[in-house]
Amino acid sequence: MKTLQTLQTLKTLTVIKIGGNVIDSEVALTRFLGDLSILDRSESQWILVHGGGKIATDLAKRLGVEAQMVDGRRITDAAMLEIVTMVYGGLVNKRVVAGLQAKGVNALGLTGADGNIITAHKRKHPTTDYGFVGDIDTVNTAQIRALLDAGFSPILSPLTHDTFGTMLNTNADTIAAALACALAMSGERNVRLVYCFEKKGVLRNVDNEHSTIPTLSAIEIEYLRVSGAVAKGMLPKLDNALDALRSGVETVHICHSDEILSVLQGEQCGTKITL
Amino acid sequence: MKTLQTLQTLKTLTVIKIGGNVIDSEVALTRFLGDLSILDRSESQWILVHGGGKIATDLAKRLGVEAQMVDGRRITDAAMLEIVTMVYGGLVNKRVVAGLQAKGVNALGLTGADGNIITAHKRKHPTTDYGFVGDIDTVNTAQIRALLDAGFSPILSPLTHDTFGTMLNTNADTIAAALACALAMSGERNVRLVYCFEKKGVLRNVDNEHSTIPTLSAIEIEYLRVSGAVAKGMLPKLDNALDALRSGVETVHICHSDEILSVLQGEQCGTKITL
Repeated sequence: MKTLQTLQTLKTLTVIKIGGNVIDSEVALTRFLGDLSILDRSESQWILVHGGGKIATDLAKRLGVEAQMVDGRRITDAAMLEIVTMVYGGLVNKRVVAGLQAKGVNALGLTGADGNIITAHKRKHPTTDYGFVGDIDTVNTAQIRALLDAGFSPILSPLTHDTFGTMLNTNADTIAAALACALAMSGERNVRLVYCFEKKGVLRNVDNEHSTIPTLSAIEIEYLRVSGAVAKGMLPKLDNALDALRSGVETVHICHSDEILSVLQGEQCGTKITL
Repeated sequence: MKTLQTLQTLKTLTVIKIGGNVIDSEVALTRFLGDLSILDRSESQWILVHGGGKIATDLAKRLGVEAQMVDGRRITDAAMLEIVTMVYGGLVNKRVVAGLQAKGVNALGLTGADGNIITAHKRKHPTTDYGFVGDIDTVNTAQIRALLDAGFSPILSPLTHDTFGTMLNTNADTIAAALACALAMSGERNVRLVYCFEKKGVLRNVDNEHSTIPTLSAIEIEYLRVSGAVAKGMLPKLDNALDALRSGVETVHICHSDEILSVLQGEQCGTKITL
């Protein structure tokens, strides 16, 4: 159990992304929200970005809406956009917000449309029509800062908007990286980015939980990419991590959701990404 | 078409409730959001509370979840709570927020859980178990004021929370009245409450759109209640209106969603409620 005292030294703005598998597990999510409430009582400010989990896919199935995936990205037609707006922006976001409020955290749920925080455009791709999938154009750091200064802890769902009235489905890893980049570039000091998920970090052997790679540099990531020695779904996360570091984000970690406080205290756990 | 200039004289905080039937009509909703964007450019501040519309009932039907009603209130079991959280907090709220952002309004969507803005408890009733229906305990006016001062236009969905992690389904009319009451009692000057829906006001004859009653006092409302000469669904709205006036809310109007700007300019339309 981490104590408040051990976290007092933190004076950073931390962007934390929590993966869909953690959202899907009541035990893991409850523990994670408890840890966030300890972090909240430190001097550190943070923003949480949550993934979607399986609920949207399950709901789509129940409604007879077919969920298509290309390269790990969901194809979002109009029916699927309604589903993800409901599930990510409604059900999941409010589960996290209400859960945090119950622990004394002044959480406030957002999509990119709320406060115009993240604008995007429909993905342009030469061969695939991704539908209502949004690639990020702008992150409105002034609005995020206004919410933080007013004492709110922002909880972002993986949704953006096109500024013409349409919501867009945007990958949560990418949102977290874009937020961290934009905040670092806008002059925020000590921006950290932490990807929390159900594994202990980037694993040498995806079947061995004890094979966490403690640090990964850009060159090593390039080697992993070429050799194919890393889980395919991990590569976009690693690319996001490198983008963040190149934009001035101080540190990027990939870790288990149970280890968020340890990582933020500088303990050796998870995978630290370096340039 | 109302102009910006004609609204410059307003210096009030207006709580506006938009009914579910307006939410269900794309034409009516688009027009209403356009009017709100004009209001937004005046000096007046406002908060919008939206109803749910038929989408939740339709979704429940598609999912095989039975929607039960008692005295015009939805019985909210766990499955229905998930549906209203998705539909009200996700789909409808983000439709309104993205629609307003497209018109240049810095809308920010909320439930009662976000920023702990409205807390409630599960309704206690001697004979009926309403399930996850929330009766309001507190309205956190300081948090609402913080959002308004930071330049956001709050858009509230008809959801509250119990502060123990559970969302609750709460009538939008009641939320609007509770907000207006709490803001007036916290010392906000000139709080107005406007109920906008698909009819021109309180009608003498529900089948005759030209039978709008221009003003209704508490005594006249009592007469209507006893004589049964008013649509049953209107009575809780009228009771909410009287509560608001008794708490110091300056004016309460019930009007057509197309007439929001006219009402706020003091034109004779809709029904004005008085003590």
